[in-house]
Amino acid sequence: MTDKNNSDASNQMWGGRFASGPDAIMEEINASIDFDRTLFRQDVRGSLAHANMLANTGIITSEDRDKIAQGLNTILGEIENGTFIFSRRLEDIHMNIEARLSELIGPAAGRLHTARSRNDQVAVDFRLWAKEELQRTETALTGLIGAFLDQAEVHADTVMPGFTHLQTAQPVTFGHHCMAYVEMFGRDRSRVRDCIERMDESPLGAAALAGTGFAIDRHQTAESLDFREPTRNSIDSVSDRDFALEFLSLAAICATHLSRLAEEIVIWSTPQFNFVRLSDSFSTGSSIMPQKKNPDAAELVRAKTGRINGALVALLTVMKALPLAYSKDMQEDKEQVFDAAASLELALAAMTGMLRDLTVNGAAMRAAAGSGYSTATDLADWLVREAGLPFRQAHHVTGRAVALAEEKGLDLAALDLADLQAIDAKITAAVFDVLTVDASVRSRTSFGGTAPDQVRRQIAFWRSRL
Amino acid sequence: MTDKNNSDASNQMWGGRFASGPDAIMEEINASIDFDRTLFRQDVRGSLAHANMLANTGIITSEDRDKIAQGLNTILGEIENGTFIFSRRLEDIHMNIEARLSELIGPAAGRLHTARSRNDQVAVDFRLWAKEELQRTETALTGLIGAFLDQAEVHADTVMPGFTHLQTAQPVTFGHHCMAYVEMFGRDRSRVRDCIERMDESPLGAAALAGTGFAIDRHQTAESLDFREPTRNSIDSVSDRDFALEFLSLAAICATHLSRLAEEIVIWSTPQFNFVRLSDSFSTGSSIMPQKKNPDAAELVRAKTGRINGALVALLTVMKALPLAYSKDMQEDKEQVFDAAASLELALAAMTGMLRDLTVNGAAMRAAAGSGYSTATDLADWLVREAGLPFRQAHHVTGRAVALAEEKGLDLAALDLADLQAIDAKITAAVFDVLTVDASVRSRTSFGGTAPDQVRRQIAFWRSRL
Amino acid sequence: MTDKNNSDASNQMWGGRFASGPDAIMEEINASIDFDRTLFRQDVRGSLAHANMLANTGIITSEDRDKIAQGLNTILGEIENGTFIFSRRLEDIHMNIEARLSELIGPAAGRLHTARSRNDQVAVDFRLWAKEELQRTETALTGLIGAFLDQAEVHADTVMPGFTHLQTAQPVTFGHHCMAYVEMFGRDRSRVRDCIERMDESPLGAAALAGTGFAIDRHQTAESLDFREPTRNSIDSVSDRDFALEFLSLAAICATHLSRLAEEIVIWSTPQFNFVRLSDSFSTGSSIMPQKKNPDAAELVRAKTGRINGALVALLTVMKALPLAYSKDMQEDKEQVFDAAASLELALAAMTGMLRDLTVNGAAMRAAAGSGYSTATDLADWLVREAGLPFRQAHHVTGRAVALAEEKGLDLAALDLADLQAIDAKITAAVFDVLTVDASVRSRTSFGGTAPDQVRRQIAFWRSRL
Amino acid sequence: MTDKNNSDASNQMWGGRFASGPDAIMEEINASIDFDRTLFRQDVRGSLAHANMLANTGIITSEDRDKIAQGLNTILGEIENGTFIFSRRLEDIHMNIEARLSELIGPAAGRLHTARSRNDQVAVDFRLWAKEELQRTETALTGLIGAFLDQAEVHADTVMPGFTHLQTAQPVTFGHHCMAYVEMFGRDRSRVRDCIERMDESPLGAAALAGTGFAIDRHQTAESLDFREPTRNSIDSVSDRDFALEFLSLAAICATHLSRLAEEIVIWSTPQFNFVRLSDSFSTGSSIMPQKKNPDAAELVRAKTGRINGALVALLTVMKALPLAYSKDMQEDKEQVFDAAASLELALAAMTGMLRDLTVNGAAMRAAAGSGYSTATDLADWLVREAGLPFRQAHHVTGRAVALAEEKGLDLAALDLADLQAIDAKITAAVFDVLTVDASVRSRTSFGGTAPDQVRRQIAFWRSRL
Repeated sequence: MTDKNNSDASNQMWGGRFASGPDAIMEEINASIDFDRTLFRQDVRGSLAHANMLANTGIITSEDRDKIAQGLNTILGEIENGTFIFSRRLEDIHMNIEARLSELIGPAAGRLHTARSRNDQVAVDFRLWAKEELQRTETALTGLIGAFLDQAEVHADTVMPGFTHLQTAQPVTFGHHCMAYVEMFGRDRSRVRDCIERMDESPLGAAALAGTGFAIDRHQTAESLDFREPTRNSIDSVSDRDFALEFLSLAAICATHLSRLAEEIVIWSTPQFNFVRLSDSFSTGSSIMPQKKNPDAAELVRAKTGRINGALVALLTVMKALPLAYSKDMQEDKEQVFDAAASLELALAAMTGMLRDLTVNGAAMRAAAGSGYSTATDLADWLVREAGLPFRQAHHVTGRAVALAEEKGLDLAALDLADLQAIDAKITAAVFDVLTVDASVRSRTSFGGTAPDQVRRQIAFWRSRL
Repeated sequence: MTDKNNSDASNQMWGGRFASGPDAIMEEINASIDFDRTLFRQDVRGSLAHANMLANTGIITSEDRDKIAQGLNTILGEIENGTFIFSRRLEDIHMNIEARLSELIGPAAGRLHTARSRNDQVAVDFRLWAKEELQRTETALTGLIGAFLDQAEVHADTVMPGFTHLQTAQPVTFGHHCMAYVEMFGRDRSRVRDCIERMDESPLGAAALAGTGFAIDRHQTAESLDFREPTRNSIDSVSDRDFALEFLSLAAICATHLSRLAEEIVIWSTPQFNFVRLSDSFSTGSSIMPQKKNPDAAELVRAKTGRINGALVALLTVMKALPLAYSKDMQEDKEQVFDAAASLELALAAMTGMLRDLTVNGAAMRAAAGSGYSTATDLADWLVREAGLPFRQAHHVTGRAVALAEEKGLDLAALDLADLQAIDAKITAAVFDVLTVDASVRSRTSFGGTAPDQVRRQIAFWRSRL
Repeated sequence: MTDKNNSDASNQMWGGRFASGPDAIMEEINASIDFDRTLFRQDVRGSLAHANMLANTGIITSEDRDKIAQGLNTILGEIENGTFIFSRRLEDIHMNIEARLSELIGPAAGRLHTARSRNDQVAVDFRLWAKEELQRTETALTGLIGAFLDQAEVHADTVMPGFTHLQTAQPVTFGHHCMAYVEMFGRDRSRVRDCIERMDESPLGAAALAGTGFAIDRHQTAESLDFREPTRNSIDSVSDRDFALEFLSLAAICATHLSRLAEEIVIWSTPQFNFVRLSDSFSTGSSIMPQKKNPDAAELVRAKTGRINGALVALLTVMKALPLAYSKDMQEDKEQVFDAAASLELALAAMTGMLRDLTVNGAAMRAAAGSGYSTATDLADWLVREAGLPFRQAHHVTGRAVALAEEKGLDLAALDLADLQAIDAKITAAVFDVLTVDASVRSRTSFGGTAPDQVRRQIAFWRSRL
Repeated sequence: MTDKNNSDASNQMWGGRFASGPDAIMEEINASIDFDRTLFRQDVRGSLAHANMLANTGIITSEDRDKIAQGLNTILGEIENGTFIFSRRLEDIHMNIEARLSELIGPAAGRLHTARSRNDQVAVDFRLWAKEELQRTETALTGLIGAFLDQAEVHADTVMPGFTHLQTAQPVTFGHHCMAYVEMFGRDRSRVRDCIERMDESPLGAAALAGTGFAIDRHQTAESLDFREPTRNSIDSVSDRDFALEFLSLAAICATHLSRLAEEIVIWSTPQFNFVRLSDSFSTGSSIMPQKKNPDAAELVRAKTGRINGALVALLTVMKALPLAYSKDMQEDKEQVFDAAASLELALAAMTGMLRDLTVNGAAMRAAAGSGYSTATDLADWLVREAGLPFRQAHHVTGRAVALAEEKGLDLAALDLADLQAIDAKITAAVFDVLTVDASVRSRTSFGGTAPDQVRRQIAFWRSRL
């Protein structure tokens, strides 16, 4: 303990924020109540399940169990209505609730801690929270997929440029483009589900790290907390944060998808592209340029990738080379996960909103889709398929046709048949069936291709999985 | 094109490595053949499947198919026996093979590219490689789990300290500690399996990005390449690198587990701990200090975490905000995945070897397990359970007993019964049944606890899952 | 705008947190007031400087300037005493203050925004804050270096093992070990100073991005805000966040140093090493194991590395591939820097405290330093230097001496001269001058070596730089 | 040692790549010769300096020094002309050279290792390499800055849109935009110089970690290796990798700048923007779409950010929580730095080339600059400045003028004076002096503003710093 004289010295040494010396520093670095109070519901829920099990197995009396339950429910109410007084001196949510329970019900409060330690308590609280968050993420992803399906349905025939290198490559439809995102967010949802399945185990009863000599029933607490089963190793139970790392990983991949879409929205909203118009809800304007619309929400969604990648790196770094079972370093897990979860939830909601409200400028998309001789590969394919030209020759003929069109300032579809036949006599009028953007799009009927029927087939596939 | 004069100017401007000017720079930044040649087997396999399908669907003749197959197999042989001449001017593995095929079989080579583009070709090659690598990782993890099970079997009763904060907390067994790692690497293996399941789709036939008008059969190529099914969206097929990101994520989590074990081995190998002795195979010595053993392999395994985390960050950063469908940025995907995969494979092999060869110093572990009054919680639990003391009082009594033992320089188990009864009269001789480390360990019979029977139960559970 | 019916639909669609639909989402993602209120002092300071300059250059009247100054000072007081009402609807600190200024002084408030935009306003606010934080970091580093110098002074002769691979290699002194950290934190401080020097430019007056047509004096505002000079390019002024990235980089390197020291403290605090004892202020205990001390503060300092690395990755990711000049993504810069700064400040304070309070167990260090034949290289060097043996032979002789000592269970220094001479006749009694740990340490007199005089020389060097 | 039977077992256990069992694994993970051979010149240089110093201080004879020098120069020649045979069994470059030196000159080779260890040897080699690389980076940055200055000079008057949110905000010039990058790369260069200054210390003579008892002269070796001075602490000398971390940090920030420019080039090269045209050298085309140009080089430069950020994270992770002095983990430092350095060098060269060859489409830029009522703020500023309107009213008037222009489908500059006066009678014909993009740009004469004279002033400033 720092005595008074030292304390005075400290005042001078530490100054500012830590004027009260080592104690202030230690409280600042050690206390987690500022963020782990988020877990109050899970903490109460875990304690209720534990108390019930203790009573059912005869380890505590049912009278004690009832007192504990009553006390915990009182505390839950106090926290919910804002009358609970949190204390940093009591470090964390567990000790804050424990101390208050003791005030409310006396010595019976102590019995709640039979066959339990803070190590398995915090593990079960955090897992309960994470599982709920994963379920919320699953729902949000389903919502976003739904919004894409609706747009894809409306725009199954809306022609737009398919880009490579951000250059027009071949015509596709906006519906098809939307369905690419459905695949991405569908994989994200599948990763969420796998993560839930894998982490659906209750660590409660692992105690400090070695298990306990009390005749507890871990399957019972697992069941009452809606976990599939209890964890199988008590050391792992208190030292594992895989579920947090896996959540952050899948969040980072999902955020990457969101950032790609956000980037497209930003680019498509420029006057140069003018493919889409965001609703007022998701853009900001200028008092003196009333026509101006800044895609703020899309930019912020794009930026969240950084935040979530950062959280992943943070926890991977924290967990690197930590000896088993529990080290205090692991207290740094929660803030990263809470922040990444809130960011992902918000980004998904914002993107769903933007997408639902998005106005598509079909005319601009169509014009861009048709520029740059985007159906040149259709011509080459037609020459191979219908005129029987060898591949290399078909490419050569196509190159000449494009050069001619460029020279004349025309689209391929606007060339005269005679001009085309002058390049290769095997060309017939039927070629024009593939030279327009609509024909090109309609022709791409391979499984997963951009032909509207294919797009509708995949919409139906996904509708049945909403 | 750079003409001669420009080239001379370039010589002065660029100097050194890039003396030949822009062309040298562009070749250096653009060519991928130095690393994507790794994919030669997958490229040939994909092409064979594609040619077969083209013949089966009547798009090319069976004669052409046979020529193509023969040519590709010749090329495969040339690469395998080192006679194939790779050219950087031909940029990548696909064009190197394509050019050689053309030399070998003439115009038929061109027909192989019907209804295919480099975009779906590289996507299918990389997926085939990644799936094989994931399968190798699964096998390596099973091997490591097996090594742990063998050690756990031998050491199910070997007492060691269970640590929190790297301080002795409660006695556990080395077998139980091993089983914590089995859980971790078991989760890693399960993540690998989920990843395989999710990525088991063939992108072949997506063509450049829009699908194709040729009447191809993507289900047939998917099947012949051992993919479960074809991908459902052609844009996503060429723009998706989720399987690479997911592999890097699971590799990073697995490497984190390896780093924790490596750290323990480094610490346990110090003369101060002296818990384990590495075999000569996995350590290095000193010419003048023959007794010295440096845990080099463990340190290098620990360091691989950095490398794999770095690869994950690299690819997440590359993919951030990339518009669909394909951008050249994505060429940076392979080196990260190749390097992380090689690092993980090597780290798993090294750790499996270290573990199999590890000599455990049971005596040192036991001595450490018994120090620091590690059975104090056993005493407190006994007082609650057997003597019916309220929790708080049990803690108070235990504290006094520990203080007495410390004063006398004795272990708790070495205190006189009379001395203990002087602290609390309810204590009986039966208490000594829980005060030794062996008794403590034996008593932790809760599901997943450290009691040897529980450990053996979990070994059996995992043996059936090897 | 969302009408009432849509709003009802929204209620169902968004649910929970975003029940009020798009507007709630947009406010949540767009508003920065929850974190940028931290900048209130800097915002007021920047505005006062701007108003003064506008008056001095005749762009506004001195009456307006006085009203503005009075209003801003009123606002400063309101925020400081907690009576200011922040509004999320007003998005950020700038608009919150602007709106309040308008309430307080009417139309003159508008004149403050002459020749200024929110873009250069936020840039100057954030730079002012960052410069102050860098100066605080410099002071904290100087404090930590001072704590090391004090320990190094006390322990210039305290022998401890020098480790490689966490194995004893050669004896060093604790003072010398401390001075290694002085070098590290000295480099950190030098990086801080370089960063201050580089970022010491005022962006105020860059306006939206293009500069302004008003005849402002940017040198004047730069000077009154204690910046060395104004920035030289208005686009860069509003798009640059290098100072934030550079701060995060140097923070990450500094946190890496802290983590190395924290790791050593954790390992040295184990009963097995027992090299140091943390004060009660920086460790936590156990109610039933009164002798137990967990190095919580060191573990938490070690974990902060993760947090700071994460912040660096986050901002690097955000800034990747952002077109100039300003994109809303950049709003994500502040939270990362604020959090990393608070973490670094706290970790530095905690480490300084731990170090000042640390009790060194010289006996345990000395015993460990002498184990493992740590002076074998001293013997080999002596044989080369004094007995003129070729290098290789000296190593061979030393190996035999160590083997003999190990066989006899003795230290090298405890071997008989006769035994040594039996191995090599050139050995004389003078050899014992280098075989003890003290002699070994004293002999390492090369510049920067561990000899106490060398250590004291370096202490003096650094004292003069405090 | 693995005996024959074990070896057979190994064959089955390890399979594949590691068929020969533990030895193959250990060689694979432990050997660094595959990458550290890059350091051969530095290793020879360091050894020559050390041998000279040893001779000058009388520790070895000048005959031995001469033999050593001759042998080392022979080896240097062998490596340079490709006749040197590297052996993985000898692990690293140091032992490969050492073994060959021994072959060439016999026992004198051993004397080279007097007062030196592999720890300080690798430290000095890597520092020498890093310093040279930093100097190359400095030169490359100067080259890139020069390319920007040349473009800025040509385009000091070329009007383009200044963007915020990728929406046109205000007119600027392309020269001004270029100068923003000069500021960025100028800061990068200044970071490189600071890094060189900070790391310019020779660790040679730190020996294993404790210094040495030989009377070496570290100032002499420092000087002969062109280091400013020797390091001050022997432990820090062998455990420090700050220079590598600092290089990776500055490389990451520089790569971020490059990625912003690359992104702009990709967007500007779209047919929609059409602001610039890349030379053929730095783009790729299509055999059938001759007009198509893909900005491959820009995309690859953009992607290098990922790679370099990844390297930074990798090394930060490796160094986290490593106890002093040397751990084998640190062997992972070189590949990250080598790869990041090569990537940065290549990206800088590619960007310099792209920039020098870039064709600017001034007409398209000008047209875009004038769209979207980009001079609205000029109007508002004029109303404040010249017509004396209060700020808020000026904004109101401007909004009405923009609305009128939009209604009429005209630019602001094309409105009738009468129409403007109908909105506010204080408007005079002089207003048209600020409503064109050229007038707007010319008017922004504040220090660092976009007015051509200001741009030229900054070009001159930077020219003098090339």
